[in-house]
Amino acid sequence: MTVTDTAPAFFTASTTMKAQVVPTADAIHRLEPLSMDEVTFTSGFWADHQAVNASGIIPHCLAWEEKVGWIENFERARTGTIAGHHAGLWFADSDVYKLIEAMAWEVARVGDTEQGRALEAEIQRLGTLIEAVQDEDGYLNTRYGKPGLEDRYTNFPMGHELYCTGHLIQAAIARLRSGRTADDVIVRTALRNADHVCATFGADGVEAVGGHPEVEVALVELYRATGQRRYLDQAQIFLDRRGHGLLGDFEWGLEYFQDDIPVREEAVARGHAVRALYLMAGAVDAAMERGDGELLDIVRAQYDRTLARRTYLTGGMGSRHEGEAFGDDYELPTDRCYCETCAGIGSIMVAWRLLLATGDVRYADIIERTLYNVVAASPAADGRSFFYANPLQVRVPGEEAMTGELSSRSGTSLRASWFEVSCCPTNIARTLASLAGTSVTRSVESEGRVPEIQVHHLTSMDVRTTVTTAPHGEEHDGAVAPLAFHLRTDYPNDGRIGLVIDEAPAFPVRLAVRIPSWASGAARLDGAVVESATGSGYAIIEGVLIAGEEHILELPMMPRVTYPHPRIDAVRGQIAIERGPLVLCAESVDLPEGVTTEDVELAPSAGPVLDADGRVTVEARVVAPPNDWPYEPESSSGSGNTFALPLVPYYSWGNRGPVTMRVWLPQATS
Amino acid sequence: MTVTDTAPAFFTASTTMKAQVVPTADAIHRLEPLSMDEVTFTSGFWADHQAVNASGIIPHCLAWEEKVGWIENFERARTGTIAGHHAGLWFADSDVYKLIEAMAWEVARVGDTEQGRALEAEIQRLGTLIEAVQDEDGYLNTRYGKPGLEDRYTNFPMGHELYCTGHLIQAAIARLRSGRTADDVIVRTALRNADHVCATFGADGVEAVGGHPEVEVALVELYRATGQRRYLDQAQIFLDRRGHGLLGDFEWGLEYFQDDIPVREEAVARGHAVRALYLMAGAVDAAMERGDGELLDIVRAQYDRTLARRTYLTGGMGSRHEGEAFGDDYELPTDRCYCETCAGIGSIMVAWRLLLATGDVRYADIIERTLYNVVAASPAADGRSFFYANPLQVRVPGEEAMTGELSSRSGTSLRASWFEVSCCPTNIARTLASLAGTSVTRSVESEGRVPEIQVHHLTSMDVRTTVTTAPHGEEHDGAVAPLAFHLRTDYPNDGRIGLVIDEAPAFPVRLAVRIPSWASGAARLDGAVVESATGSGYAIIEGVLIAGEEHILELPMMPRVTYPHPRIDAVRGQIAIERGPLVLCAESVDLPEGVTTEDVELAPSAGPVLDADGRVTVEARVVAPPNDWPYEPESSSGSGNTFALPLVPYYSWGNRGPVTMRVWLPQATS
Repeated sequence: MTVTDTAPAFFTASTTMKAQVVPTADAIHRLEPLSMDEVTFTSGFWADHQAVNASGIIPHCLAWEEKVGWIENFERARTGTIAGHHAGLWFADSDVYKLIEAMAWEVARVGDTEQGRALEAEIQRLGTLIEAVQDEDGYLNTRYGKPGLEDRYTNFPMGHELYCTGHLIQAAIARLRSGRTADDVIVRTALRNADHVCATFGADGVEAVGGHPEVEVALVELYRATGQRRYLDQAQIFLDRRGHGLLGDFEWGLEYFQDDIPVREEAVARGHAVRALYLMAGAVDAAMERGDGELLDIVRAQYDRTLARRTYLTGGMGSRHEGEAFGDDYELPTDRCYCETCAGIGSIMVAWRLLLATGDVRYADIIERTLYNVVAASPAADGRSFFYANPLQVRVPGEEAMTGELSSRSGTSLRASWFEVSCCPTNIARTLASLAGTSVTRSVESEGRVPEIQVHHLTSMDVRTTVTTAPHGEEHDGAVAPLAFHLRTDYPNDGRIGLVIDEAPAFPVRLAVRIPSWASGAARLDGAVVESATGSGYAIIEGVLIAGEEHILELPMMPRVTYPHPRIDAVRGQIAIERGPLVLCAESVDLPEGVTTEDVELAPSAGPVLDADGRVTVEARVVAPPNDWPYEPESSSGSGNTFALPLVPYYSWGNRGPVTMRVWLPQATS
Repeated sequence: MTVTDTAPAFFTASTTMKAQVVPTADAIHRLEPLSMDEVTFTSGFWADHQAVNASGIIPHCLAWEEKVGWIENFERARTGTIAGHHAGLWFADSDVYKLIEAMAWEVARVGDTEQGRALEAEIQRLGTLIEAVQDEDGYLNTRYGKPGLEDRYTNFPMGHELYCTGHLIQAAIARLRSGRTADDVIVRTALRNADHVCATFGADGVEAVGGHPEVEVALVELYRATGQRRYLDQAQIFLDRRGHGLLGDFEWGLEYFQDDIPVREEAVARGHAVRALYLMAGAVDAAMERGDGELLDIVRAQYDRTLARRTYLTGGMGSRHEGEAFGDDYELPTDRCYCETCAGIGSIMVAWRLLLATGDVRYADIIERTLYNVVAASPAADGRSFFYANPLQVRVPGEEAMTGELSSRSGTSLRASWFEVSCCPTNIARTLASLAGTSVTRSVESEGRVPEIQVHHLTSMDVRTTVTTAPHGEEHDGAVAPLAFHLRTDYPNDGRIGLVIDEAPAFPVRLAVRIPSWASGAARLDGAVVESATGSGYAIIEGVLIAGEEHILELPMMPRVTYPHPRIDAVRGQIAIERGPLVLCAESVDLPEGVTTEDVELAPSAGPVLDADGRVTVEARVVAPPNDWPYEPESSSGSGNTFALPLVPYYSWGNRGPVTMRVWLPQATS
């Protein structure tokens, strides 16, 4: 099959939408995303992060991928000099593809600007390198199958070939969704690779699955972007095959690969966290597109149970360094938790799909939590170093960062420039670049036939879209009209969010602005048209809107005390302080000389104080270490003078040199 | 050098003592052990365990080492058929040596009985197999250096060749200390191997250390048993070389091997727990024998800090599965703790040496704690299955044991017959077989020139020894006379310990019976001659003793509540119940149907109750799991009816099928 065979199908509805996950018309879904062309972040937290992504993260990733040879791998594979010189681990290609995906979304975001043109040239350069490596039959990998290398498909558990294919496809989808077609070098390479995978691993093909899920989610998106059913079918074949032990034995058990239990029979996320979450994302996608409500309900229940029992306050997932894995229910250690940045992104991938599929605003809440407290926590302020793991407690200060040196993955209190396994930086880059496309949605079926738009990310943005009344309405049956509005806010520093209508149709519409669950019951909405500010998870503005009308949403931003459920042993007797969507933490740099965050406990009944400068503190005192055997016939606690312990947003921690840090703070009972 | 060169030196003082660790006269030491010929366990907990060792553990280990091919390795290495057929991991030989050591101590214990003769024949059979593999130059390993195998000494980090040498030497020491000489096949093989190591790795030899310490401790003991200084010197060379990165890079850092920091510069046990503790034992041994008080103080401080900050209530050590390692200070998770059985034995090895070196009774306390709650917890009641890891909390019941199948190492709630890494069973076997030789000591310098004997293990035993007055005493200057006494007790089930004098000299002696620290201040001693029952850590019986006189020591055996130091995050807000030397735990099999140990909390202020049948219970209630996001604005706790939760000794857990289990129990505050 040649690429051009599929070209006519490219211009499906879901191809024209610049966004991650665009359900087809027939899919199970309640919401669909607005395109990045319709939503623009204008200022504030996420606009700033997108700027750092453009100026820091993306060029940093490109420089490192050149430096460590992951891009050179393609040149060497092409020229036959790769044997003995392959740089990086099995999945090195995938990080080049993820970077291309990030650049593609960034081109989509910034358009025909100097920066956009430079990125486009880079995509073309890399695409040419990559395409030249592709075999006649569509196979593509620098690590296998070339002279002197191992044969292709000889290591399904760890070889990551299908994982690399998945990320190449995701890069192609970013291109397709921003107007490119099969002429594009990334698109045509990915399609040939995807067709090769379908031909090789189809119903009558090799009965195998890849050790690291990713190709499943990518194939469903490729179906959405091309209309070619075979990609969806192939995704389902991979999903059905998994869970039957095809991957063979493994040191940490087949649970690591989610290959011990079929996805339809599983109750909760298990094993390697990123693998588990990518698989769940693929399963939700396939369930939506195949109308498989049963599978959708199963995966939704898995994710809900994972949120209730296996998720950190930050939204982080993955309790174990060993196997980078989920732990048992309620196994949530704060010090040795893994909370890999990519697992946070995987969780957002699942939650975003479930939000679209079900319309349940709770999934937007967990996306916000995870974005602010995992994704934003990983990169340094300049976007040139990263946390791979995101522990909630660091007992021993790390050493000064080795700028320019490769780092191992384990957590310290300092970010690293690059990692041997460097999946996280490029994952952040593609997430930030495409973030506006996962910010605002519209309802597929508007209740009462009033079209509804939902704003999920509370950040300054301009929104310009169109709305359509449902057929069989009375006055404006099937009418299409522009709707434009903008949000202005300093959230999450401030709880005041202004919404101004810029252009509105002559028929009624509903604007639903998400009220985070922590603000439920305390948020206030002032303005002309208010339906409900509590209970639904949204502040609703409904009616015939007038250009210029303004609504003010006030979210309560006093720092608040959060208690763990008593099942969570690791943080029993401790409290965390949250402010808005931000989890706060203490860093030793803010403590008296010689005192670390391991030395403190909160005075009995201490609560957070917000001062006039916006600084949050909490009253603490010092606990002396034990001199000898630390298990005692009487309970003991700290003593002495108390002091005001400053707290900072968790996402900002580790930017002031080596420190100890903790989110959960022990509270003395007497 | 041939073996006979060293033969005349064998009959040193320390050769005649059947005991682990017999300091030479010139060594730094305050106490020296009584021989296994002088101390016999007559009944009770440890006598029972020694019987299980003889009837269960030792024959079980032998059968498994045959079954999995670790013994056949020697046959194959001899006949040149080992290439491609080496069974087990790098250190398979060491477990054969540890089993021989266990059998050698057992022969020493049971003497010329049917069982003793059968074991002796087995030792001879294995010794002949082993000796036949030894190279001309003394090198001996089935994994390296034979046709078709890797070359010797090509993998110092993981090859374990010096580790295997260490365990072969330990087996030879057990033989030497029970009267064998260089004629013995184990002794002569070990001496040739030790001499090869000295020749290869001496001051002018290959500058290397083995990845797993063990040879150091063995070489010092070999010096003690033979009087050959070169073994002590070689041990010191290995100790001095370590900590300078000779082992190269490693995934979890050189800390894993204790090769990042020299032992003299280290403050606490770090890295792989068994490695760390074996190294410390070797360092204490070398410091004692070389009169290096500075090194002794350093290692003592390391161990003391390890006890205060990195040790579990059970005496278990090792907080992390990853790297089987110590964690940071106060990083003591109960669920994912490793507490490898061998690390418990390593801790006992260090504590026993420090007890002899310093006379500080606290080291006998930690030995007792670790014996009852780690060593005794590992084997099943029949001695035919074992825990490798000894967690203090198991959240999910394991699956039924696969009798007859190899197990991976990770902890479940069921013991396994054998492991791929099966260091623990043979380590238990040698520890139990030689236990009487680490039970009773004498003072090197008797205070006030009254000779003193210390009883450390509180178990029924017959002791028959001699005592000598110090020179320059008045009446009995330098006199030697028999001293015999026996202890009768049902400890730890009961706190009453009777001590009866069977034979005593005409001059004053001191008998010091250890009072565990938990009983300090509450123990009572009734009898003719009492100096002090509190404060010193010993109940002292001093004077001219009369055959037939009886003393009764009463230890308080009511179950007691133990609180963790507030630094230990993992068990904050929880209590443990101890009774005598036993840590207790709850098992789900004792809970109402459908309730696991994860579902319970203790009612506020609940304390343990001991009923007339000796059953310990504590008042508990059920905590419901969270339905959704488990971090809440209000603290919550369990409710509903309370019930009496039975507690059992931790050492006995997991003998009633798959269960959940926990030692630390959350206590509701309201």
